Amino acid sequence: MPLKPLYITSGEPAGIGPDICLDLAGFNTPRPLVVLANKSLLQQRAAELGKTVTLLDYQGQSEPASGSALYVKDLPLAQPVINGQLNTANAAYVLAQLTEAARACMRGDAAGVVTAPVQKSVINEAGSLEGRAFSGHTEFFQEYAGVPRVVMMLATHQLRVALVTTHLPLKDVAAAITQERLRQILNILIHDLKTKFAISHPKILVCGLNPHAGEGGYLGREEIDVIEPVLASYRAQGVDVGHALPADTLFTPKYLKDADAVLAMYHDQGLPVLKSQGFGEAVNITLGLPFIRTSVDHGTALDLAGSGKASSSSLFVATELALQLADRYEAAL
Amino acid sequence: MPLKPLYITSGEPAGIGPDICLDLAGFNTPRPLVVLANKSLLQQRAAELGKTVTLLDYQGQSEPASGSALYVKDLPLAQPVINGQLNTANAAYVLAQLTEAARACMRGDAAGVVTAPVQKSVINEAGSLEGRAFSGHTEFFQEYAGVPRVVMMLATHQLRVALVTTHLPLKDVAAAITQERLRQILNILIHDLKTKFAISHPKILVCGLNPHAGEGGYLGREEIDVIEPVLASYRAQGVDVGHALPADTLFTPKYLKDADAVLAMYHDQGLPVLKSQGFGEAVNITLGLPFIRTSVDHGTALDLAGSGKASSSSLFVATELALQLADRYEAAL
Repeated sequence: MPLKPLYITSGEPAGIGPDICLDLAGFNTPRPLVVLANKSLLQQRAAELGKTVTLLDYQGQSEPASGSALYVKDLPLAQPVINGQLNTANAAYVLAQLTEAARACMRGDAAGVVTAPVQKSVINEAGSLEGRAFSGHTEFFQEYAGVPRVVMMLATHQLRVALVTTHLPLKDVAAAITQERLRQILNILIHDLKTKFAISHPKILVCGLNPHAGEGGYLGREEIDVIEPVLASYRAQGVDVGHALPADTLFTPKYLKDADAVLAMYHDQGLPVLKSQGFGEAVNITLGLPFIRTSVDHGTALDLAGSGKASSSSLFVATELALQLADRYEAAL
Repeated sequence: MPLKPLYITSGEPAGIGPDICLDLAGFNTPRPLVVLANKSLLQQRAAELGKTVTLLDYQGQSEPASGSALYVKDLPLAQPVINGQLNTANAAYVLAQLTEAARACMRGDAAGVVTAPVQKSVINEAGSLEGRAFSGHTEFFQEYAGVPRVVMMLATHQLRVALVTTHLPLKDVAAAITQERLRQILNILIHDLKTKFAISHPKILVCGLNPHAGEGGYLGREEIDVIEPVLASYRAQGVDVGHALPADTLFTPKYLKDADAVLAMYHDQGLPVLKSQGFGEAVNITLGLPFIRTSVDHGTALDLAGSGKASSSSLFVATELALQLADRYEAAL
């Protein structure tokens, strides 16, 4: 049976998304890689960068493109792109990439999607989402897939960190840590570690919410009242999930050496450690979707578009990981 | 002029404090090191560990002890110590070490103090502090010195992280970040980087409170309303303090390479990165006291007392750093 393609959204056209997507030509993969972008824009950017890339229209081919060829799903731009200049007229083009990718994944025509960066502000200024705010790729795919919750995970070669809460003001974090939310997040994390990472019995370390994991209630009671009862119920079902640990001892080799993933309660508890260890090689993975989604960990870098100074390394690791996860996910289903 | 001694409190007598203090015999230093402990306990522990250490009563000698000798300020125990067994009867002995050290520092008889671990619970159970709770070394020394605020800093060879808030439940952190508190903390941090670290024009990086440092107010307003106005006022006075940065980009080589210290808003934002990089070599430093105070970064390890398995490496780096800071502080005064 032919392998389903992996879709790559090129993102904001005035940024480095098109540049780094061009570097996928010649990327040796078992599955077709399909870049969602405007073909003329890619041609123009390739010329600016002095690159020879053959752009092929993707029409369901099952073989990967070879040599310097790259499959493209051509999408129309509203106005010509000026490198580095945001243009609300082209916001709908960015959303069309995401919609096309989500549709193909949900229909079973694509195994997953890797996303290059978008500029949230220009999409929101354009009002392209019919008056609703565009919060980011993750929320867009979640809504399209119709799932009640997804989990943000960042991964490097050494470490996987999933988050219970993500882009919340710090003052709202403690109240957001409920037993219901924790169970939803743990269910998704365990399910996806099994099906997408092929880890049959995942070992998960969990950070406490408070400093020193509350120090027996002395520095906060959420560990005792909310977190530990949930963890105990999973342990009772045979899940390998530890007690809530202080974040400043958990992220040390002694604890991490046998762990498959760390569950941090909030953004700045888990991500600074991971990014300090592997900046530029971290991949953002959305768990809980019925398809694979990974993302680069950098922004649009508007000032570097067309300059030849953009690095494709984050896109490469995001693509490699998506390919691995896709194989495992298909085998698990 | 002879150099003032550095005092070392041996901490909880049933833990590894006495063991690791014995390893200071033979530590080659320009200043006398003076261990505050019960002499018989040290002798007994040395015998158990098979160590030959000559214990000398400290009576103001200005020369460091030589060879296998160690200066001791002998303090009485209420009851004999059983390794690994906490005893509230000896809680007053632990506090006597801290009081003796603080008194010597405030009188100018000692340059500073390095603390081995204590067991907070046994001091509180004993009610040794006349009914008041014992919160920790830091608060004890702060109160003794009569200063309104101190700053907790953790340092490794690569990184120094100071905290705006320390042992607070996470739900209380946002409200604790006030302009007044930020100014007090920054004043102490700047003063002590100059006087104790001999950095004439310190460069300080500051974490935002919220994820992505609030992302322009979209993920919290404390950066705009509280933090940035304070930072701007310091910059206006020529202080090298940056804008509030996202914690997950700040702790990367690009930002850290020129920085003298990082100011994190709370415990689990700053310490997991530091401890993940240098566990066992992190030193806890209390800034804002009129003397030097450093501490080991581990606990009492009751199960290892007398076993020969305790590592003195954290005490060694805490002592080395205290000696460096003491030299600079005396030169600056």
